Amino acid sequence: MPSAYPEPVDRLIDRLSKLPGIGRRSAERLAFHLLKATEEDAMGLARAIADVKRAVKHCSVCFNLADRDPCPVCADESRDRRSVLVVEQPKDLIALEQTGMYRGLYHVLMGRLSPIDGIGPGELTVARLLERLDAPASNPGGVRVEEIILGLNPTLEGDGTALYLAEEARQRGVRVTRLARGLPSGSQLEYANKAVLADAIQGRQSVS
Amino acid sequence: MPSAYPEPVDRLIDRLSKLPGIGRRSAERLAFHLLKATEEDAMGLARAIADVKRAVKHCSVCFNLADRDPCPVCADESRDRRSVLVVEQPKDLIALEQTGMYRGLYHVLMGRLSPIDGIGPGELTVARLLERLDAPASNPGGVRVEEIILGLNPTLEGDGTALYLAEEARQRGVRVTRLARGLPSGSQLEYANKAVLADAIQGRQSVS
Repeated sequence: MPSAYPEPVDRLIDRLSKLPGIGRRSAERLAFHLLKATEEDAMGLARAIADVKRAVKHCSVCFNLADRDPCPVCADESRDRRSVLVVEQPKDLIALEQTGMYRGLYHVLMGRLSPIDGIGPGELTVARLLERLDAPASNPGGVRVEEIILGLNPTLEGDGTALYLAEEARQRGVRVTRLARGLPSGSQLEYANKAVLADAIQGRQSVS
Repeated sequence: MPSAYPEPVDRLIDRLSKLPGIGRRSAERLAFHLLKATEEDAMGLARAIADVKRAVKHCSVCFNLADRDPCPVCADESRDRRSVLVVEQPKDLIALEQTGMYRGLYHVLMGRLSPIDGIGPGELTVARLLERLDAPASNPGGVRVEEIILGLNPTLEGDGTALYLAEEARQRGVRVTRLARGLPSGSQLEYANKAVLADAIQGRQSVS
């Protein structure tokens, strides 16, 4: 039985239903919304998608997303280029950057080691990170990296990746730290799970 | 504090979060998906949106969505043009059409009467429907409409709209029917609510 939608509507529904978390029903709802939307709103979305694909690339130094290369963080001469904070995803970089608490550089791995899924160092941007540690000329401003801060997710795979990178960095005489773990600010102790409490005890800080 | 996203990413997130049912978080997730997607997939979506706005319009006779005017249903000479099934939305037309059980024409009201929301007959396509009843020349093939079938939603507002249209049609000597109500096929009687059971009793059909 032929679909009763005009062909362009069918095609839009197909495309929308390929997006993550958008099923057939949601795709239909979105397509009808776009049909009813103003020309300016619908075409604005179409253009925004095209612009993002055209203008936004990964920084060739740290793999941050940016509309120029190197990205604004790598290009910023006021930042402390001796320090590189390693994260899994561009999203993580953005979350950290929004705290305004960190003034060094970053390196985005584009994932984490996951032997089960066949993801080894070669599938990530590890080689480029090690190059930045080995050859100061390949780090912004030609500055030698003195510390890497591991900002991987506190998961089994994130920890495995951190362990691997820590070993590589130490062999190169680079200081290795990782983001602190403990009770999430604003949480209630009674609802924290065992792993969080164990981290909080192990990492307890002296109060002057 | 400036957002850490490149400007085109920000703009895409803004546009996506204007879609119904898409919050800020989902919009970010979708934007990152599009960034990672192949050029062909992302541009395919952008093009599908543009095409739908360019090519798909409402039929000037029945307000069905179509990429030509009149729409394929109105243009199909094999359909019974004496009968017009009135629905609220193009989606309803499509759902009915997919059953393959109806061979007449349609009329899409583009909503239902809702005095509370200030929606009167003037906000809907009622005038065009009455014109089709009054002047056979304005109905496809110049065929006189003999029956209108009310296919509005079985809600308070749908029923109010049906009542209003039934009166208008009767004044014009047009037969008025409405879609049957009763137990939904495949349901279980014990879970049906009172209104459904009342409809089922009132509309009981003789078994030969």
